[in-house]
Amino acid sequence: MQIISTVAELRQRLRGVAGIAFVPTMGNLHQGHLDLVRIARQHGQCVVVSIFVNPLQFGANEDFSKYPRTLQADCDKLEGLADVFFAPTERELYPQPQQVTVEPPLANELCGAFRPGHFRGVATVVLKLFNIVQPQVAVFGKKDYQQLYVVRQVAAQLNLPVEIIGGETVRAPDGLALSSRNQYLSAAERTEAGFLYQMLVSTRQAMLDGVTDYAKLERQAAEALTARGWQVDYVAVRAQATLMQPESGARDLVILAAARLGQTRLIDNLEVCI
Amino acid sequence: MQIISTVAELRQRLRGVAGIAFVPTMGNLHQGHLDLVRIARQHGQCVVVSIFVNPLQFGANEDFSKYPRTLQADCDKLEGLADVFFAPTERELYPQPQQVTVEPPLANELCGAFRPGHFRGVATVVLKLFNIVQPQVAVFGKKDYQQLYVVRQVAAQLNLPVEIIGGETVRAPDGLALSSRNQYLSAAERTEAGFLYQMLVSTRQAMLDGVTDYAKLERQAAEALTARGWQVDYVAVRAQATLMQPESGARDLVILAAARLGQTRLIDNLEVCI
Repeated sequence: MQIISTVAELRQRLRGVAGIAFVPTMGNLHQGHLDLVRIARQHGQCVVVSIFVNPLQFGANEDFSKYPRTLQADCDKLEGLADVFFAPTERELYPQPQQVTVEPPLANELCGAFRPGHFRGVATVVLKLFNIVQPQVAVFGKKDYQQLYVVRQVAAQLNLPVEIIGGETVRAPDGLALSSRNQYLSAAERTEAGFLYQMLVSTRQAMLDGVTDYAKLERQAAEALTARGWQVDYVAVRAQATLMQPESGARDLVILAAARLGQTRLIDNLEVCI
Repeated sequence: MQIISTVAELRQRLRGVAGIAFVPTMGNLHQGHLDLVRIARQHGQCVVVSIFVNPLQFGANEDFSKYPRTLQADCDKLEGLADVFFAPTERELYPQPQQVTVEPPLANELCGAFRPGHFRGVATVVLKLFNIVQPQVAVFGKKDYQQLYVVRQVAAQLNLPVEIIGGETVRAPDGLALSSRNQYLSAAERTEAGFLYQMLVSTRQAMLDGVTDYAKLERQAAEALTARGWQVDYVAVRAQATLMQPESGARDLVILAAARLGQTRLIDNLEVCI
């Protein structure tokens, strides 16, 4: 596997290469990422993985500086799985202050309501990376469901010649979705963390059992989390296709949640087809 | 020359074609456009010209509905000059309401101050067209100087693999910059219209003669226009590289102006190297 840190070198390496499958990440790779790389391999002849902790998508009070950076370990994990590993510096991707930004839809909804500017930062860096790598296919995890939606919208509405594929969330045995942020959790918090998924499962079960008052289900789920010591940002039942409030009779739904345990903000979601 | 109206057909036509030089226009082609096409020919093996009157860059009270549409005449003019002529419908480029937009720098400066949302609309459609055509080179007229700046910034900051080339403004014998909007002018207004360029020339002469109080030059120029019946949006001396107020001692400058004669808004500019 080749490790590349500059845009010029990457363009040179990929010139004339057809069938590029791309997995953009922020590094600190876990099995969830490796699954995305495996999916990429099924869709392209040349698998490119990028690792870049993107300052543009972090708020001023967020965890940019403490976000785990484990470049060598990431490299080792990708050996034999990816063909090209792109790890640019901040200066390489943002040689000047970024004045051109991409405004995605629902930027102030769900996680966007709690992370102002986050999805603008995501959309902008993903577009930059797409323009550098020029993949035929790009793979994003469903764990970041709203991010996947935003990237799909960016690709469709800006006419990007790339197919976006969503990879299933990989979970720990207790259901906790794998995430680099899980390592911020104390032992006690880690024990509690699995409840977020259990809450999603029981909410899904209620929906499958015919409950249609989603506002009530959202409220109950948030109350259950709060009672156990979580600080809830939101629990929301939305339409899969639009991430908007589902219209009456809508069948392809998703339950999304974001909540904090201590200092650690966790997100998760579960699709429900009723 | 091949005339194509759908994105799918265009992608099909351009698949595997190297060295695409692209000239995006709003049609109603005049010699200024044809010059850009000539420049494109010098830089690419396959010259693509698009014609699309982009609703996203027109304000609610602007001239979108009356903007001249002369598709057949445009076609005739391009015969023998371009290889592919892309004329999509509004529905083809905006099958859904455009929710993903590109925010460029200086969007509220100069013309942006008088046309809210205009440069967002320009940046967004240009990026869409670039993603559809995937040119190696794109040519824009210097007459729309701020637009050229915006497009250069979009290309650079979003890491687009395209070189942006500026084509010189083509002028009528009295100096009036060629523009589709000139045809809105009454005979009397057309006679007066050449003064905009004369004002730029005399302002440039003052700068070359050593006048450094640009604010005063701007004010004098605006007053001269107003005295002759123009409604002035702005006359501004800016740095070529940034379109910001020039720093003391800056040498590569540009005088930009926008003013209305009756209902018709004209813009022009002149570079000054002192």
